[in-house]
Amino acid sequence: MNSVIKNLQWRYATKRMNGQKVPSDKLGNILESIRLTATSNGLQPFTVLVIEDQETKEKLHKAAFNQPQVLESSHLLVFAAWKNITPAQIDTYFDLVYEERGMEKGSLDQYATFLKDNFSKQTSDEIFNWAAKQAYIALGTALVSAAEEEVDSTPMEGFNAAEIDQILGLDEKGMGSSALLALGYRDSTADHMVDAKKVRRSKEELFVTI
Amino acid sequence: MNSVIKNLQWRYATKRMNGQKVPSDKLGNILESIRLTATSNGLQPFTVLVIEDQETKEKLHKAAFNQPQVLESSHLLVFAAWKNITPAQIDTYFDLVYEERGMEKGSLDQYATFLKDNFSKQTSDEIFNWAAKQAYIALGTALVSAAEEEVDSTPMEGFNAAEIDQILGLDEKGMGSSALLALGYRDSTADHMVDAKKVRRSKEELFVTI
Repeated sequence: MNSVIKNLQWRYATKRMNGQKVPSDKLGNILESIRLTATSNGLQPFTVLVIEDQETKEKLHKAAFNQPQVLESSHLLVFAAWKNITPAQIDTYFDLVYEERGMEKGSLDQYATFLKDNFSKQTSDEIFNWAAKQAYIALGTALVSAAEEEVDSTPMEGFNAAEIDQILGLDEKGMGSSALLALGYRDSTADHMVDAKKVRRSKEELFVTI
Repeated sequence: MNSVIKNLQWRYATKRMNGQKVPSDKLGNILESIRLTATSNGLQPFTVLVIEDQETKEKLHKAAFNQPQVLESSHLLVFAAWKNITPAQIDTYFDLVYEERGMEKGSLDQYATFLKDNFSKQTSDEIFNWAAKQAYIALGTALVSAAEEEVDSTPMEGFNAAEIDQILGLDEKGMGSSALLALGYRDSTADHMVDAKKVRRSKEELFVTI
């Protein structure tokens, strides 16, 4: 069977976790999957905070409407989307491309200028929305990769973003929280969703063939 | 090795495809992966158009700045995000939950009312942005699943959304195009990116551990 289907069938939005730690090799694989994820123009316009510190989780717990997974997770990932793409960031990106691909510096100047122009015309809100979407591609990857490692996960949008941003100092870094992902292990006794059937629209409802 | 990492290392944003058809079992697995993808509250606020018809692709090709993959793909997926979530749609969703999980009808009324209130306070733009992010989770899944099937894929944001929406009649259905995904097979001769090294920020740049 296609491993992605198998992984998606295994996973569910875990409501209660048991605090057990995710081993570093498994966490490393989940993070590597996020790192390799495709993003628009390869720009990866986000930073992922990997929070293991329990005191920080306690602060975030309140800002996430007391959802227990924040405290009970092994690691809480915060996908922080960038609110601006500066010409300097574009230059840094192309320097990396030149270095990694052994290309002559400046050979993609036309492309770089196009991107700089494009972002200079957008508001911070527009860039943030676009950057958050890129982070959600990585979120999709992370859900599948965590399941592959038999690690439970809970994607979360239910939080006060302004409070999370303040706690983590994201605003002054030009970022904003776009999604949380709790990683850990299900508490099969406390979690009432552990055996719930997955509910999805039928393929006839979801897809239109032309 | 974690199969997600393997799949992400194999894939790249294919610039030229050879027109070869993706067999229906492979396409079916990619679509099933999209269908099983997690979304906020399980609402799946998008419709995926699966376009095989060459005449339709020709119209879309112009609206997608003549990117050759639109024509050369086997199937072009259009992720159409919903611009509104009506109380009736919420009811339809909960009817499905009651049916699938064998629950008493109305037993989740409080949750349904919360969602209806929540969406009634949002503008169409806000709902569209949120819905598009859910579609991008599925886009992330689709990229990994296509690679698992050894099917090449190209995620695309470079298109005139208003034109695409007009060609496909999305506006009158309360939807808007948020991303395209070409599925097919690489043309290794014509595609100058076929052997290009994947460029990603280092883990030290992408992740912050707290």
